[in-house]
Amino acid sequence: MDRFVCKEDYPVVETKAGKLRGYVWNDTFIFKGIKYADAERFMRPREIAPWEGVKDAQSYGYVCPLMEQDHPSMELMVPHMYWPMDEHCQYLNVWTQSIDPQAKRPVMVWLHGGGFFAGSSIEQLAYDGENMSKYGDVVVVSLNHRLNILGYLDLSPFGEQYAESANVGSLDIIMALRWIRDNIAGFGGDPDNVTLFGQSGGGAKVWTLMQMPEADGLFHRGIVESGVYAVGGMGDIEEQDGTQIVGAMLEELGLTAAEVGKLETLPYAALAEAYRKVAPAIAAQGGYVGNKPHIGSLYAGDPVRHGFREHAKQIPLLIGTALGEFDFLPPVAKKWELTREQVLEKAGKRYGDKAEQVLALFEQAYPGKCLLDAMVVDTVFRAPTIAFIRERAKSAESVTYSYQFTYEFPIYNGKVAWHCSEIPFVFHNIDKVPICNKDEGSLRLQEQICGAWINFAREGSPKIEGVEWPRCQAGDEAVMILDETCEIRHNVDHALIELLESLPKPGEEERGAVQH
Amino acid sequence: MDRFVCKEDYPVVETKAGKLRGYVWNDTFIFKGIKYADAERFMRPREIAPWEGVKDAQSYGYVCPLMEQDHPSMELMVPHMYWPMDEHCQYLNVWTQSIDPQAKRPVMVWLHGGGFFAGSSIEQLAYDGENMSKYGDVVVVSLNHRLNILGYLDLSPFGEQYAESANVGSLDIIMALRWIRDNIAGFGGDPDNVTLFGQSGGGAKVWTLMQMPEADGLFHRGIVESGVYAVGGMGDIEEQDGTQIVGAMLEELGLTAAEVGKLETLPYAALAEAYRKVAPAIAAQGGYVGNKPHIGSLYAGDPVRHGFREHAKQIPLLIGTALGEFDFLPPVAKKWELTREQVLEKAGKRYGDKAEQVLALFEQAYPGKCLLDAMVVDTVFRAPTIAFIRERAKSAESVTYSYQFTYEFPIYNGKVAWHCSEIPFVFHNIDKVPICNKDEGSLRLQEQICGAWINFAREGSPKIEGVEWPRCQAGDEAVMILDETCEIRHNVDHALIELLESLPKPGEEERGAVQH
Repeated sequence: MDRFVCKEDYPVVETKAGKLRGYVWNDTFIFKGIKYADAERFMRPREIAPWEGVKDAQSYGYVCPLMEQDHPSMELMVPHMYWPMDEHCQYLNVWTQSIDPQAKRPVMVWLHGGGFFAGSSIEQLAYDGENMSKYGDVVVVSLNHRLNILGYLDLSPFGEQYAESANVGSLDIIMALRWIRDNIAGFGGDPDNVTLFGQSGGGAKVWTLMQMPEADGLFHRGIVESGVYAVGGMGDIEEQDGTQIVGAMLEELGLTAAEVGKLETLPYAALAEAYRKVAPAIAAQGGYVGNKPHIGSLYAGDPVRHGFREHAKQIPLLIGTALGEFDFLPPVAKKWELTREQVLEKAGKRYGDKAEQVLALFEQAYPGKCLLDAMVVDTVFRAPTIAFIRERAKSAESVTYSYQFTYEFPIYNGKVAWHCSEIPFVFHNIDKVPICNKDEGSLRLQEQICGAWINFAREGSPKIEGVEWPRCQAGDEAVMILDETCEIRHNVDHALIELLESLPKPGEEERGAVQH
Repeated sequence: MDRFVCKEDYPVVETKAGKLRGYVWNDTFIFKGIKYADAERFMRPREIAPWEGVKDAQSYGYVCPLMEQDHPSMELMVPHMYWPMDEHCQYLNVWTQSIDPQAKRPVMVWLHGGGFFAGSSIEQLAYDGENMSKYGDVVVVSLNHRLNILGYLDLSPFGEQYAESANVGSLDIIMALRWIRDNIAGFGGDPDNVTLFGQSGGGAKVWTLMQMPEADGLFHRGIVESGVYAVGGMGDIEEQDGTQIVGAMLEELGLTAAEVGKLETLPYAALAEAYRKVAPAIAAQGGYVGNKPHIGSLYAGDPVRHGFREHAKQIPLLIGTALGEFDFLPPVAKKWELTREQVLEKAGKRYGDKAEQVLALFEQAYPGKCLLDAMVVDTVFRAPTIAFIRERAKSAESVTYSYQFTYEFPIYNGKVAWHCSEIPFVFHNIDKVPICNKDEGSLRLQEQICGAWINFAREGSPKIEGVEWPRCQAGDEAVMILDETCEIRHNVDHALIELLESLPKPGEEERGAVQH
């Protein structure tokens, strides 16, 4: 049996613009680096020009330039993959089990994280779509789009031609979704069953696209992993425009407002440097600095503040967070050996006279978990996620499923689930991320999580064998705990989160100090 | 059984400078991103400062900045991995099956390709050392070092302090080899059995290090894969210094010779840009532009022109090339279906009245291979490799084994082995590079090649079960053909290469034109 197949005429798929040649690896059809749109800087993307003959689609395409270079670290927790960068980065990748136009498999479109300013479709080793496609017989698509000042900077006060500049990054995604609508059948996919899934900024892309009328009808379900943040209280920023930030950049670059057109041709590095110099001071004063979709005719705004659009209410959602999220701190020595008194002493340094109450509510929410983990319970994502789910529950027609990922990873003597840590399980890729692996339980959890996501894409509800997973209702968040034992817990942590939200937030240094 | 292990105190190895914590994955101990030296720009590297406590060695370190960004393409043939860049890039990685200081396993040190100006220890997915370490029970080390103008630019005419600047990239490698000598026992390795292996520029690093007295005793065997090029005729360049190129860079940067010190602190990007502007014209006139070790007291020069140093003669070598090397052109349609007459017609366009002779010698050298492949037989590496082996054979004490990699890859209707294409087989990593895989024959070839390299490291001679592999002698190059059937052929292609070398060289465009 041939493990690898690539012939001149196979696999070749005809798209609207022309023919593409991918390859087959262990029975999965793989197409990488498909250009789905072209765009001038700050401008709405347009369809690509058609071509004659067959183009190779076997190499990942450029990723969007980043504002700053990453520093390689914590690769054990989140193994990365970097790639050459270019602002002409509108590329997508497809993994599928069939190229029969009648196959009509569910399509799962991965939107990468990194806020709206960083990351790429291949930034993490765990983003590879081959295993998920094979495990679930689904078509997995991932895509790059414009980010940061290239995708989300409001130049509109400086010229009508820039009316859409603050949202062109999301317009890129919409172009990718149109490409999927027009072409995915040729890759064995069902254009009428498209699920967006994403984590962190990728999750935020899912719900912001629900608030963009141009995306209506291009996707049918959404999965938001740790993707609700900064909602409900951002109105003052949402309604500002780019006058201040772009004005400051122009000044930094020695340009007048009349010379704004030069921003279209200056090297990206110069733009990025100017932005990095002026943005922090503006952001510190609560000013608009871009890096997210901008409210207006293209985007209806944060749904907790502005409500869900009618179309958005109809889109079934699966949504959740990880228990520890931003706990990227070094693991704590012998945390399981600490006595309750020792934990209470540490907790007292942060929570004062509420420490006992925090611990008690943690024990109630997460019986059997290490008590010290009460110190790293996430509220950054979890609190707004609760608010988001409550807003959804106002409409009886809105279908919402909730999860919480609480797996303890086998490093040192156990580390609570962090931001990104569910991704290898979602993609059935724990083989690529050693730290995920304990024993058969890890493999079973991978099948449960990946299987739940795929079932949600296929049927509109997540499913875990042997555990009923009800949707959320007003006043009742049915939370699936994703862990070595999966189970439903109702409003599992609401009292704990409410208490933590009422307490002063520690700085990261303070958290480190408390932990060590 | 735990597939992944990382505890606070395990695996922890004590090195000369301090303790390092790695991790265990499927029984392989892995340590990534170990800093082995520090250096100021253009200066000799120095030992790193010692530290207290335990440092994590779990993330790859920075790679050396490149002169230009790569364009992602041909990923099917050579899948890449990119990484954040910094000129402080002296990092190495270790894969081992034991951290018992008494284990004394052979140490295999991979030197990456990309000439002396590009690449990194992790540039190709196939460079991952886990599988090779496990297959052969050897300690695999890979390393980054300074490249291009950071590693190999001769500033010595502009100041005594720069006396070594043209070789500091190789001095970095020597520091890594000293680190190995001092520390590898703690990683289960034998400091008295160190084999360097490398491909392309990495192969050239092996033989240039044999010509550097400071490296004597730090390694004991060498494997040169497609790594002999531009030897025998480079004397005029070797004996030039950096006066012209550095002078031109200074002028481009608006600096006087007295201001040369500013090159130490200017951003790398500015240096690289100046170099890129001025170097091509100098190179076109046969001038020195750096990017390779510079002859002098640190480096004895090209051994074909200057002879092997006495110490170098004692180092057993395994050396070879790939049949197609720079044939990165698109595969030819239905090449196996062409008649001899059709091939002769194509060959006639390039070789004129020698075409028939080229084909006849190709058939004699490679019976059973597709005749059209006569058009892509490499001479760039193969011709100087023959000269190199002949030079070696002048000393009866020099042990040299030769191979040629002639595997036909299963893309379209078969593509001859190209530059880099043996690497996944060497590293037992064909699972990571789909295009390598036909059937069980591919897996067997992987075991034969990886096994031969490991046996050479362990015992000083390569071994393939069932096929005797003699060393080369004066007038007799015993070439192991590495292919689905491995066999020894004596002087296999000497007549063919001699003929091809006597003919005018086609440009790449012309080759393309002939092929299609």
